[in-house]
Amino acid sequence: MGKTNIITIGREYASGGREIGKLVAETMGVPFYNKEILHMAAENLKMSAEDVKFADETAASSLLYSMSLMSNLSTSVSLPINDRIFIEEREVIKTLAQNGPCVIVGRCADNILKEIRDDVLNVFIYADSEFRVKRAIDEYGENPDDVYAVLRKHDKKRSTYYNLNTGQKWGAKDNYDICLNSANIGIEMCAKLIVKLASES
Amino acid sequence: MGKTNIITIGREYASGGREIGKLVAETMGVPFYNKEILHMAAENLKMSAEDVKFADETAASSLLYSMSLMSNLSTSVSLPINDRIFIEEREVIKTLAQNGPCVIVGRCADNILKEIRDDVLNVFIYADSEFRVKRAIDEYGENPDDVYAVLRKHDKKRSTYYNLNTGQKWGAKDNYDICLNSANIGIEMCAKLIVKLASES
Repeated sequence: MGKTNIITIGREYASGGREIGKLVAETMGVPFYNKEILHMAAENLKMSAEDVKFADETAASSLLYSMSLMSNLSTSVSLPINDRIFIEEREVIKTLAQNGPCVIVGRCADNILKEIRDDVLNVFIYADSEFRVKRAIDEYGENPDDVYAVLRKHDKKRSTYYNLNTGQKWGAKDNYDICLNSANIGIEMCAKLIVKLASES
Repeated sequence: MGKTNIITIGREYASGGREIGKLVAETMGVPFYNKEILHMAAENLKMSAEDVKFADETAASSLLYSMSLMSNLSTSVSLPINDRIFIEEREVIKTLAQNGPCVIVGRCADNILKEIRDDVLNVFIYADSEFRVKRAIDEYGENPDDVYAVLRKHDKKRSTYYNLNTGQKWGAKDNYDICLNSANIGIEMCAKLIVKLASES
């Protein structure tokens, strides 16, 4: 690996991957991209973020929903909305990487950049259910009664999205340079290790 | 996790896990245990290291071989040789951990210490086949003609040993605090990150 310019972070739901990415970006003084990628893609496609938010990191949305959205579009549309969003997000990610050093969370960025750049550090953040459940309740306000189902639903959504779009297995360590257990290591230490690795490699 | 005293390192064959463990131990000024654990266990069982070397990190050796060994033992033996070795290695690992900070490679040390200590950092080292094949030839003198088969054989042996003795899946990242891709990160940087994590957590 050459000097690291781009850091991608895959993450289990509520594992703290987004917070770790933010900390890394702040420490290194580089831009942080997460939901922003969706907004940029939506703008490029001349859709409102509201219209496409259900398609973000979703591989298999309701056909009916897709069709209803497609029927409202003035431009000619031949692909399902999810595929169009993915294709556009992919272009956004490539452009962001070209524009300079940054941290990108989710959206198959590791796989999208793997073939075209050698200055990308690919990170995966994971944690046990106990840690993630606590964070989902405390940080995201999830209902304690069905929080385990929420965890499973989000992880399933992310893995389906990744697996279908990349042909690889989401969270399989071979796809990443480093995998960190945020529950055991702590969010700040995860960020410190990533910064050290990105700065010195 | 409290302050780290013990570092365990699981590793794919020829991924550099042993070298990384040695570097970490040297840097931190603590003992390094790998094959030594087998020798200590053999001594405790009053067997020669030669007699037991085939049982090291092997869960399912030939029944015939086990029986031939057992028939030569003067003491009463009720368990297969591999199980006796595992049980004795487990005791050795617990004792080594009690004796003070150290680095332990392989032998299910992560799982053995998990229930009884909270000052253990569990690391897994992995790498792609290309990197490991090169190292297996260059460092271990494996024959290039069948080196892929050797890789598969050793990984299979380690995973069977770990899975049968722990009920967990060898290399599954949930069992570890940090997983490092030595092919991408480099052996020295892997050691640096482990030292940083062990020193500051």
